[in-house]
Amino acid sequence: MLSKNQLKYIQSLHQKKYRQQYGAFLVEGAKSVQEVLQSDFQIELVVATEAFYKENARLTDHQRTPVEIASVGDLERAGTLESNNAALAVVKTKENRPLLAEPGEIALILDDIRDPGNLGTILRIADWYGVRKILCSETTADVYNPKVISASKGSFTRVQWWYGNVVEVLNQKNTPLAVYGAFLGGEDVHTLAFSQSGYLVMGNESNGIRPEVAQFVTQRVTIPRYGDAESLNVGIATAVLLDNIRRVNAGQ
Amino acid sequence: MLSKNQLKYIQSLHQKKYRQQYGAFLVEGAKSVQEVLQSDFQIELVVATEAFYKENARLTDHQRTPVEIASVGDLERAGTLESNNAALAVVKTKENRPLLAEPGEIALILDDIRDPGNLGTILRIADWYGVRKILCSETTADVYNPKVISASKGSFTRVQWWYGNVVEVLNQKNTPLAVYGAFLGGEDVHTLAFSQSGYLVMGNESNGIRPEVAQFVTQRVTIPRYGDAESLNVGIATAVLLDNIRRVNAGQ
Repeated sequence: MLSKNQLKYIQSLHQKKYRQQYGAFLVEGAKSVQEVLQSDFQIELVVATEAFYKENARLTDHQRTPVEIASVGDLERAGTLESNNAALAVVKTKENRPLLAEPGEIALILDDIRDPGNLGTILRIADWYGVRKILCSETTADVYNPKVISASKGSFTRVQWWYGNVVEVLNQKNTPLAVYGAFLGGEDVHTLAFSQSGYLVMGNESNGIRPEVAQFVTQRVTIPRYGDAESLNVGIATAVLLDNIRRVNAGQ
Repeated sequence: MLSKNQLKYIQSLHQKKYRQQYGAFLVEGAKSVQEVLQSDFQIELVVATEAFYKENARLTDHQRTPVEIASVGDLERAGTLESNNAALAVVKTKENRPLLAEPGEIALILDDIRDPGNLGTILRIADWYGVRKILCSETTADVYNPKVISASKGSFTRVQWWYGNVVEVLNQKNTPLAVYGAFLGGEDVHTLAFSQSGYLVMGNESNGIRPEVAQFVTQRVTIPRYGDAESLNVGIATAVLLDNIRRVNAGQ
């Protein structure tokens, strides 16, 4: 049974302010909770229906994770999902450790990606294409937002992120790694020979990459258009760019 | 001013049943309304704020489109968007005319794409990659759903669709066009030489392409994975596949 205080605490984690204050966030739904229980995240509490608990007891018992059994109604009251008949987990946030691309590695830089759904999708795409490091400008959506976690479909357990001043990172970088940036009027990604090391910068949904970041882009790249749509969604563009980067590498 | 009957009529178009009964659908928001006013769709009525009307009068006056001036509150009450300070249009649906891929053309077949957001995104992607024809199984989300129209970002004015028995279409097709289908374990799209003519079949979000459709697929294709995510969203996969199809053609 969830106590009133537990319910209040969990509900407070819908808001960034309280996630930061308590250093915890929510993971919701059967699949995501199963994935986080098998990851290196530290779990504070699992709230589960009896059915979910019985089916997944080995995952919680193994780590001696505290579990509260709750009704579907209580689960939905506590969490943010419209329907959740399985479980939610209260999980400790990770330390905000600096990340840099190593030679032989592509890292993502997200410059002011505002939409949580887009950020979650980008985590999933990074995970598909084997990108493990995501550097986020402070204005990028909070990765611990329940919508981000949910849209990432479990990929939040397999990629790392850092929030901070990406301009400074690019300014201080003294390695000769490539910095690719998505722009209109850049080099055609179908013919460009991509390096296997460096950064791919994706910009804000409406305004693109900020000038202070753009000055560090060593190669502007563009997805060629064959029809008339004005633009592609930033998640779609990230996937197509990473596919082109990996494709070129595959041929080498 | 919107009359009570107008308001009731517009609200009824949130539902598929009434869209079919009245042969009309809703287009909402400044950008989409501007685009539909410049398309070949027949407009029944535009409901606009005074500001939007003044700025766009040349678009409505040109076609002698009936316009009702409304407050933002009335607009939002009538439509489905959480915020809309510009306009909505009531637009006639088009006749459901059969579509076939011609030689030299790639057409999409959507086999049971259920999520309106995914369908809208696919319309936008098709428009970007110059795909003009989309054949939808009867179980695919209704393209006239306001969420589809909105997610398509105006691309619904530039692509054509048909709903019907896609199995029959594939069965009756006597031209030797390729039928590509997205599957796990298919040919690597980074090395496959795509034809410039044929169909690309995308399947249901959870279950993929149905067996009765799969039997007509002449070439199974797969996006190679470099990391650990279980899958890509169907919109993302459509974009990456079309990018690979166009990319190959670009090189020829």
